[in-house]
Amino acid sequence: MSVAGLHEPRPADAGRLVVRCPDRPGIVAVLSRLLADVGANITDSQQHSSDPTGGTFTLRLEFMLADLAARRSQLEGALDLLARQWQMTWRLTEAAHRPSIAVFVSRTDHVLQELIYRVRAGDLQAEITAVVSNHPDLEPVAHAAGIPFHHVPVTPETKEAAEARALELVGDVDLVVLARYMQIVSADFCSRFPERLINIHHSFLPAFVGANPYRAAYDRGVKLIGATAHYVTPELDAGPIIEQEVARVDHRASVEDMRRIGRYVERQVLAQAVTWHVEDRVIVDGEKTIVFA
Amino acid sequence: MSVAGLHEPRPADAGRLVVRCPDRPGIVAVLSRLLADVGANITDSQQHSSDPTGGTFTLRLEFMLADLAARRSQLEGALDLLARQWQMTWRLTEAAHRPSIAVFVSRTDHVLQELIYRVRAGDLQAEITAVVSNHPDLEPVAHAAGIPFHHVPVTPETKEAAEARALELVGDVDLVVLARYMQIVSADFCSRFPERLINIHHSFLPAFVGANPYRAAYDRGVKLIGATAHYVTPELDAGPIIEQEVARVDHRASVEDMRRIGRYVERQVLAQAVTWHVEDRVIVDGEKTIVFA
Amino acid sequence: MSVAGLHEPRPADAGRLVVRCPDRPGIVAVLSRLLADVGANITDSQQHSSDPTGGTFTLRLEFMLADLAARRSQLEGALDLLARQWQMTWRLTEAAHRPSIAVFVSRTDHVLQELIYRVRAGDLQAEITAVVSNHPDLEPVAHAAGIPFHHVPVTPETKEAAEARALELVGDVDLVVLARYMQIVSADFCSRFPERLINIHHSFLPAFVGANPYRAAYDRGVKLIGATAHYVTPELDAGPIIEQEVARVDHRASVEDMRRIGRYVERQVLAQAVTWHVEDRVIVDGEKTIVFA
Amino acid sequence: MSVAGLHEPRPADAGRLVVRCPDRPGIVAVLSRLLADVGANITDSQQHSSDPTGGTFTLRLEFMLADLAARRSQLEGALDLLARQWQMTWRLTEAAHRPSIAVFVSRTDHVLQELIYRVRAGDLQAEITAVVSNHPDLEPVAHAAGIPFHHVPVTPETKEAAEARALELVGDVDLVVLARYMQIVSADFCSRFPERLINIHHSFLPAFVGANPYRAAYDRGVKLIGATAHYVTPELDAGPIIEQEVARVDHRASVEDMRRIGRYVERQVLAQAVTWHVEDRVIVDGEKTIVFA
Repeated sequence: MSVAGLHEPRPADAGRLVVRCPDRPGIVAVLSRLLADVGANITDSQQHSSDPTGGTFTLRLEFMLADLAARRSQLEGALDLLARQWQMTWRLTEAAHRPSIAVFVSRTDHVLQELIYRVRAGDLQAEITAVVSNHPDLEPVAHAAGIPFHHVPVTPETKEAAEARALELVGDVDLVVLARYMQIVSADFCSRFPERLINIHHSFLPAFVGANPYRAAYDRGVKLIGATAHYVTPELDAGPIIEQEVARVDHRASVEDMRRIGRYVERQVLAQAVTWHVEDRVIVDGEKTIVFA
Repeated sequence: MSVAGLHEPRPADAGRLVVRCPDRPGIVAVLSRLLADVGANITDSQQHSSDPTGGTFTLRLEFMLADLAARRSQLEGALDLLARQWQMTWRLTEAAHRPSIAVFVSRTDHVLQELIYRVRAGDLQAEITAVVSNHPDLEPVAHAAGIPFHHVPVTPETKEAAEARALELVGDVDLVVLARYMQIVSADFCSRFPERLINIHHSFLPAFVGANPYRAAYDRGVKLIGATAHYVTPELDAGPIIEQEVARVDHRASVEDMRRIGRYVERQVLAQAVTWHVEDRVIVDGEKTIVFA
Repeated sequence: MSVAGLHEPRPADAGRLVVRCPDRPGIVAVLSRLLADVGANITDSQQHSSDPTGGTFTLRLEFMLADLAARRSQLEGALDLLARQWQMTWRLTEAAHRPSIAVFVSRTDHVLQELIYRVRAGDLQAEITAVVSNHPDLEPVAHAAGIPFHHVPVTPETKEAAEARALELVGDVDLVVLARYMQIVSADFCSRFPERLINIHHSFLPAFVGANPYRAAYDRGVKLIGATAHYVTPELDAGPIIEQEVARVDHRASVEDMRRIGRYVERQVLAQAVTWHVEDRVIVDGEKTIVFA
Repeated sequence: MSVAGLHEPRPADAGRLVVRCPDRPGIVAVLSRLLADVGANITDSQQHSSDPTGGTFTLRLEFMLADLAARRSQLEGALDLLARQWQMTWRLTEAAHRPSIAVFVSRTDHVLQELIYRVRAGDLQAEITAVVSNHPDLEPVAHAAGIPFHHVPVTPETKEAAEARALELVGDVDLVVLARYMQIVSADFCSRFPERLINIHHSFLPAFVGANPYRAAYDRGVKLIGATAHYVTPELDAGPIIEQEVARVDHRASVEDMRRIGRYVERQVLAQAVTWHVEDRVIVDGEKTIVFA
C-alpha cells in the first residue's frame, strides 16, 4: 500500500521555504547563499524546472535555523529583495506552525474520522478548528474529538445565505477540506480560498466525472476503482489533481460493495493530500500540481 | 491499495458451510445434492485440493435457504451423516450471525480504532464485546464506542492471575484479537482459543521476528516495511499467517517515521484478517492458512 | 506488483468446464454429479450468480479424469442433454490444449516481446502462430522467435482488402490479439472473432478514450497512468474490460516518460488478460466480464 | 505497479554531480555557486542529511552546461579544490555517457532478457558488453542481441581460475550484474567492483536468506513473495539493499507457481536497481543505500 509523507514533528528551529520564479542559472546559488548567510542549514531540497531550457523554476527547502521565529523578519526582508530581482514568489513557514482546517461534511464520516485520527496521532500537523455540515448527523463525531460542529442546512433557496453563514463560522482558516460534502460550492466561495480548498472526488478522475461514480464504474465493468483529491477552482469542474489511488474490484462486487471499498481509498487519498498540503509540498502549476512528496 | 472482503450485509436467509475431508471424487456432488435437496441455492463456492491426486479437500459454500434458522437442525443432521461417511469436519453458519470479539490492547489505539470503525461502518459483521488492556490509556476510546473496558495490569509476578482474570472478563467469546497487545500470552491462554486467536506482528514475517522490528528494519536498510496477521498457537513463535501487506519507505525514513507508516499497514492487515475470519474465509491448514478471499 | 494466473502446465488428464445458464437451485449438484459419475475429480471450482434471487449462473470447473481425450465425447453427450434441460451453454477444454494466437502489431514491440517471452517460459500455454503488421519493422522479432511474420500494409483505400488478406493469413485461429496495432479494425473483422479478439488500450478506460491518451493524461495532470485490456466488439468503442492496471507518475514525468512507463503497464495488462483468456477464466457477461482469476 | 526511473535520454549538454561530505551550513551554497559561475543551470537536485544536527551530507545534481565535455576539466579542477576544503568526495558524469555492463547468468534468462529489452528500448542508458555464464544455455539469447557470450564453466576445483578467466573476459567494465548467477563469487572478485557489483536475491531479504527461498516461502505460508536487488560486498552475506518488491500469492500457489511469479518480480527489481545505479541515483551509505529515485 502507499503511505507517504509521515514524518516526526519538526522542532521549533525547523523552517520551510517555497519559491517560484522564471528559471535562470544561479537561482539555487542565490537562495542557498542567503540561507547560509543567516546561518541556516538546508536539510532537504526539492526542485522542479518546467522546462530545462527556460521555464518556471520551483524550489522547496527545509532548513534548521536557531531562533527561527526571532529571525524570521530578517529572512523575509532578504527574500523580498530577491523577489524583485528574480520575479520570485515565495512562502516561508515555521515547520512547528500548525495550520487551521475547516472540514465540510454531509452524512458520511469516514474521511472526517481519518483526518481526526491523523491529527491526534501526530501524523497530520494541523488543527481542525471547525466541522461544518448540511446535516446534523456527525455532530457526535466532532464533539467526541473536541471540535466545534456547525449545522448549516442548505436548500436551493438558502444556498447563498448558507455559504455566507458557513464562511462566517469558519473564519480566517488556513485550509478548507470538502470531506464528502455533497454540495457544490459557489465560485465566490472557491475564490475565498485560492489553492486552499481541497475536495475528494469518489472516482479516478477524469473517469466518471458526474454524480454516482460508483454506479457508473459498476455499469462500465472497470477492474479498478479510484478516488481523486484535487483543489477546487471557480473555473474548473475539478481543479488541479493532488493525489489519486485505486483499489481492485472484481465481478463479485455490487455497487454497494464498491462504495464500501471506495471509502477506504477516499480516506487514504484525501488524508494524504491534506498532509502534503499542510507540509507545503503541493504547488499549483496552472491546471496541475507539483507535489514534492 | 488492497481492500478486500467488504460486502453488503447478508440477509437472514443466507448461510455458509465450510467442510474439510480427504479428497475423493464425488464429494462436491454429494454436498451440492444435500443443499439442493433442502431447497438451498448455492450462491458462492470456493474449494481447494491440497493435492489433486489425493490430499485434503476444503470447501466453502454460501447459499440462500428460506427459513434457514428453522431448518438448521435438519441440515445439521444430514451433515452429521455425511461427516461419518466422508471423514468430514464441517461448520455451518448463518451469515446474519455476528460473532463476538474481545480485543486486547496496550497503549496504541490505531488498530482498535480501525476495528471499531469497521464494525460501525458495517464492513466487519461482528460485535466487539470487550476491550482488555494492561494499561488504562484506551479506556476513553472503548467508552466512546460503548464497549466495556477492562484494565488488567500485568507484571511478571501476576501474569498467570492476570490472564485468568482476563479470561473471566471476556467470557465465552468467539474470537480474541491481540491488537498491539505488548504481552506474550501463555500457551494455556492460546489453547483456550484454538484457531480463534489472532495477532498482528509489526513486521513482514519471517523477517524481523524479535522485538523492535522497525528498528531492525531501519538498521538493515529495507525498502519495504510490512505487517503480518497470524493465528497464535501454543507451539509456534508465530502461527499460521492470514494476511500480509507492505508499504514503501526510503532512506529519508527514520525509525519513528517507519513506526508511523507501519501503523497504517498494521491496521489494514489486522482488520482484513479479522474480517476474513469472521466471514469463515480462513481455514487453518497445518502451519498455513487457506484464505477464500 | 500484481502477477496472477501463472500456474504449472496441467497434465494430460486435466480438463476444464465452463457453463452458463439461468440460476436455479440444484444446478451445481447436477453438474458435479455428472462429473462424479464419469469418475472425474473436481480440483477447482469458481462460480458467480449475477443475482442470488434468480439471474445468470456461471461456473468454471477444473477436474482430473483419466483418459480424458478418449472419454471426451461421452462427457459431451451428457452435457448436451443437460444443456437442453437447464438452458445451458457450455465449453469443455482439455487443459493440455494450447490454443493458437495471431498477434497484430504496428511498430512497437514491447507487448509482442512479452507474449513471446511468456509462451517460451511456459507461463502462457498457447502457440503464437502468426504475427501480422502494417509495417515491416518487427519481422526480425517474429523470426527470432520462429513465428511467421506477415506484412500487410494498410491505407484508407486498401483497408478492406488488407483485412481480407490478414484474415486469410491467420486462418482459423483461436484468438486474435491487437498488441498496439494502430489500426481500427472493421465491424466485420470483429464479428469473425466473437469474444476472441483482445485489444490493449493505453489508458485507464474510460478515461482518455481517444487518440494520444498519454498526452491527454499529461495535460490533465493525473497522478496514475493506466492501461486496459478489453474484448473488441463491433458495437462498442471499447468492449468488455478484462484487466486494468496503473503506475504512479509525478510532476517530473514528460509525455515521453509516461509513454515509457506506460509500456510496462501495457505489456503486463495484456499478457495477464491473454493468459486468463487462454485458461478459460474470462466469461463475457453483457458489456462486462467475469474473471475467475 | 511500480515503474520508476524511466526518463528520456539526456542531451549531450546534461551532466550529473554527486557529492558526499560532513554536513555543514553553506555546502549547498558553495556547490550551486560553483555551477552558476561556470554557467550551468541546475535542473534537478536531491539531497540527504543523515542527521540534521551534523552528520553526512549527500547531494545529487542534474545540470545543463553548454560544451560540457570541453569544460569538464575546468569543473573538475574546481571540485578538487572544494573537495579539500569540505572533505568532500564527488563524481561528475556526462549524462550522455553509457556505462558498460557485464551480466553473469546461469541457465534462466528472464532477468537477462529484461536488461536487453530495456537497453534496446532506451529505458536503460547503458551497453551490455558481455554475458558470462557457467552454462552454455543462454548463448543464443546473447547472440540474438549482438552481445559477446563467454562460457566459463565453474567447478569447486576450478573456481579460482574460472573467476580469473571471467575477470579477464569482462575487462574494465563499469558495472557487473549477477542476473540469477547461481555461483557465490569470491571476496576477491567482490573487491574488484566496489559498489559496482549488483545481485538479485529471490526473496524479500532478510527473510529466506538461504538457498531455495521459494520453497522456504511456500513452507512458511507467506502471502507475499518478494525479490531484493543489493550490492555485493566481501564482508556481508547480502550487502546494501537497493530495491525490493513483492507480489501476492495465495494458498493455491505451488512452489513452482511461486517461482514463476517470482521471476516477474525479480526482473522488475533488478532492472530498476540497475537503471538507478546507471543514472548515479544510488549512493552506498554504510550497510544501506540512499536512492535518489
